[in-house]
Amino acid sequence: MALSPLAPASFPALPVIDGVRFATVAAGVRYKGRTDVMLAELAPGSTVAGVFTRSATRSAPVLDCQDKNGKAQSGRAAILVNSGNSNAFTGRNGVEAVNALTAAVAQTTGIDASRVFTSSTGVIGEPLPYDRIVAKLADLNAALDPAGIDAAAKAIMTTDTFPKGSAREITVDGKPVKIAGIAKGSGMIAPDMATMLVYIFTDAAIGHRALQGLLNEITDRTFNCITVDSDTSTSDTLIMGATGASGVQVEANPDFASALEEVMLDLALQVVRDGEGATKFVEVQVTGAASNEDARKVGLSIANSPLVKTAIAGQDANWGRIVMAVGKSGAQADRDRLSIRFGDITVAENGWRAPNYSEDATSAYMKQQDLVIGVDLGIGDGLATVWTCDLTHGYIDINADYRS
Amino acid sequence: MALSPLAPASFPALPVIDGVRFATVAAGVRYKGRTDVMLAELAPGSTVAGVFTRSATRSAPVLDCQDKNGKAQSGRAAILVNSGNSNAFTGRNGVEAVNALTAAVAQTTGIDASRVFTSSTGVIGEPLPYDRIVAKLADLNAALDPAGIDAAAKAIMTTDTFPKGSAREITVDGKPVKIAGIAKGSGMIAPDMATMLVYIFTDAAIGHRALQGLLNEITDRTFNCITVDSDTSTSDTLIMGATGASGVQVEANPDFASALEEVMLDLALQVVRDGEGATKFVEVQVTGAASNEDARKVGLSIANSPLVKTAIAGQDANWGRIVMAVGKSGAQADRDRLSIRFGDITVAENGWRAPNYSEDATSAYMKQQDLVIGVDLGIGDGLATVWTCDLTHGYIDINADYRS
Repeated sequence: MALSPLAPASFPALPVIDGVRFATVAAGVRYKGRTDVMLAELAPGSTVAGVFTRSATRSAPVLDCQDKNGKAQSGRAAILVNSGNSNAFTGRNGVEAVNALTAAVAQTTGIDASRVFTSSTGVIGEPLPYDRIVAKLADLNAALDPAGIDAAAKAIMTTDTFPKGSAREITVDGKPVKIAGIAKGSGMIAPDMATMLVYIFTDAAIGHRALQGLLNEITDRTFNCITVDSDTSTSDTLIMGATGASGVQVEANPDFASALEEVMLDLALQVVRDGEGATKFVEVQVTGAASNEDARKVGLSIANSPLVKTAIAGQDANWGRIVMAVGKSGAQADRDRLSIRFGDITVAENGWRAPNYSEDATSAYMKQQDLVIGVDLGIGDGLATVWTCDLTHGYIDINADYRS
Repeated sequence: MALSPLAPASFPALPVIDGVRFATVAAGVRYKGRTDVMLAELAPGSTVAGVFTRSATRSAPVLDCQDKNGKAQSGRAAILVNSGNSNAFTGRNGVEAVNALTAAVAQTTGIDASRVFTSSTGVIGEPLPYDRIVAKLADLNAALDPAGIDAAAKAIMTTDTFPKGSAREITVDGKPVKIAGIAKGSGMIAPDMATMLVYIFTDAAIGHRALQGLLNEITDRTFNCITVDSDTSTSDTLIMGATGASGVQVEANPDFASALEEVMLDLALQVVRDGEGATKFVEVQVTGAASNEDARKVGLSIANSPLVKTAIAGQDANWGRIVMAVGKSGAQADRDRLSIRFGDITVAENGWRAPNYSEDATSAYMKQQDLVIGVDLGIGDGLATVWTCDLTHGYIDINADYRS
C-alpha cells in the first residue's frame, strides 16, 4: 500500500515511560514477513483504564477488556495485541482464544490473568490461530524493552500506511511527567465509539476512576469526532496505563488533562490522515447551532456525506452539497440564517451564494491538501469540530478487493 | 453517461390516463440539445396530493408545493418541472422564480395559481433562469398531448441513464382503472424523505385526504426504503393526480392501493437500478428484529455502509462487514442469535461462520447482478426490506467531477 499523501514527515520521537516495556514478534497470524504481535508490560502499582466500541456486535477481546476494566485499582498489567485477525464474530471460539491467550500471558509473565488485556484487529469472522501467538510468548517476554514502543506502533498496523505515535512532556511541581501513545486505524473509522486501537502510557500517578473519567471526557472530543467512512469497528479499543513511576500525582491536574488531550487529538488526526484512499484532510467547524449536540450532528452529516467527500476529492467547491448535508442532518437549521465558508472564503450566507462569491478563488483554495469547512447555523451557541478525509478511487480499490 | 448495466430492457408501455396531457420542451435551463422542461395538465375535477422531502434546507418549489398541497379539494391543476437547476438554496431569488413560474403557467393555461405545482432538479445554489422557461410556456401549452408521458419521463432526467416509468391497470366494479407514473433519480438518494421527483397519474376518483393517506403509507414502504448514497436531496417530491375520468370511486379500495403500491415500488427500484455508478442491485431483507423500526435501522445501516457496498462491488462475500453494520446500527442485536445469508446460502449463524460455509459457493453467488442479503436477528418479529446498489469507481467518477 502506498504511503498516504497526508502522512507526517516522520514518526515522532517517543520518550521512554518509566515502568512500561514493549516487545514485538512476527507470529504469522495472517501476514508474512512482518511483526504482528505486541506485548506491553506495566510495572507494579500501575493504573489501567480504557474506552471501547459501543457496537452491538463487538469482539470477544473487547468484551473481555470491558469486563476486566476497573476491577483492580492498580498492580502489574499486560496488554497483548495482534493484527491480521480481529477475533470478532467468532462465537465460542472467540472466547476460547481470549481465555487461552490471557492464561498464557499470565503464566509467562507472572501477571494476574485479570490484569491481562488483549486486542485483536483485522479480518472479522475467521477463527484466531492463537496457538501461533502462544508459541511466541516466551520470546516476547524475554525481549521486553523500555524503548520498544516504536516497534509496537508498527506491529499493530493493518491497512495503515504509516505507524502513529504522539507524546507530550509536562512539568508538575518541578518534576517531569511524560505521556506517550500509539494508535492504528485507517478504515472502518466512525464516531459513536471509543476509537480504533490506541495505547497510551504515562509515568504519572492517577487512580483508576480519575483516569477513566478523563478518558471518557476527552474521547468525546477527539476519537469520537473523527470519521473516515461512517463505519464503526467491532474492535475499537483505547487502553491507557499510568505507572506512577514519576512519583507525581496528577489527579485533577489541568496541565495533565491538556497534555493528554493533545496526545489523543494528535493520534486521532493521524488516523484520519491515514484514512483509506485519502488525499485531503478536512476539518469541519460548526458554530451557531442550537446545541453542541446539534453542531456535532451537522458536522458528522457533512463529514460522512459521500457527495461532499467526492466533491472534495475532485477539488470542487460544491457548497450546494454542504447545504444538502445540513438539511438531512436532523439538527435544527434555518436555510436563511446558514452561512458556509471554505477556509476564510465565505461562499454562502443569508440563504444564498455570498454576493462577492468568486468561483476562481474558491477553486484555488480547494487545491490545498488541508481544508477547513466552516458552517454557521446562526441559531444559537452550539459548536463542534469534526475531522474527516475525502472519498476517492483509492478507497474503492482498497475495499472492493481487500478482505479486511 | 453510459447506460446503467442494471437498466430495464426497455421503457414500459404507459397507458393514456384520461384527463392528463403532457408537453415537453428544450428551454436551455442548463443542458443543451435535450428537453429539460415538462408540463402536465390535469382536467377539471382532479385531485392532487404529494409527499415531499423533510430536509431542513428544502428548495423553494418544495416549500411552495407543501403550502398548496390539500388547500383545494379538486379542480384543474398543472405540474411544471425543469431539470438542470434545483432552485434550492437560492434565497429570495428562489421564491421569486417560483412565483414568476406559477403566475406565468396560470396565465397561459387558465389554471388557478394555487393549483400550479412546480419542481426543479439539478445544481444547488445557482439562480434559476426562469425567464427561459416562461418564454416557452405558450409552446408547451399548445403542445399538450395525452400521449406525452414518455417524453415527460425523459425531460426530467439529470444524471439518470434511463427514463423511469411504471403502470398498472385494474378492474373495479367491471370498469377499468389506470395508474401511470414517471420518476427521476440516480444520486443524492436516501430515505427519511419523500423521494426524488415522481409524478403519478390515475383516472380513478379519490378525495384528497384519502389519496394523501395512501401516499404517506405507501411511501414509507417504497421510496423511504431505498438508498443509493445515504444523501437526502433538498428537492425530493412525489405528486399524484387523480382525474376521476374513469368514473370509478377507489376510496378504501384495496385493489387500487395494491396497484398503486406496485407502481410506486417499481419506480423506486428503477431509481436504485440507476444508482450512480451501480453495477449490482441489492435487496436487504431483515427479519427477527425487536420491532419493524429496528429492522429498518439494520437494513439501512447495511445498505448505507461504504464497506458493505464496496465489498459487493468487488464481488466479495465479506459477511464480516454485515456483522459490523448490524453492530453499529443502534438496533437491539445479540451477536449469538444473528444469522446472515447471501441468497439461499447461510454464511453465518449462532454468532459465527456457518458450519458448512463454502467460500466457493458464496463467491459464485456474489457474481450475480441481483443479490439478496438476508439478516435474521433472532430476537422478535420485526421486519423490513431495503433496496440499494453497490459503491463503485463509477460513483467517484460521476461525483468528483460533475457539479450536480
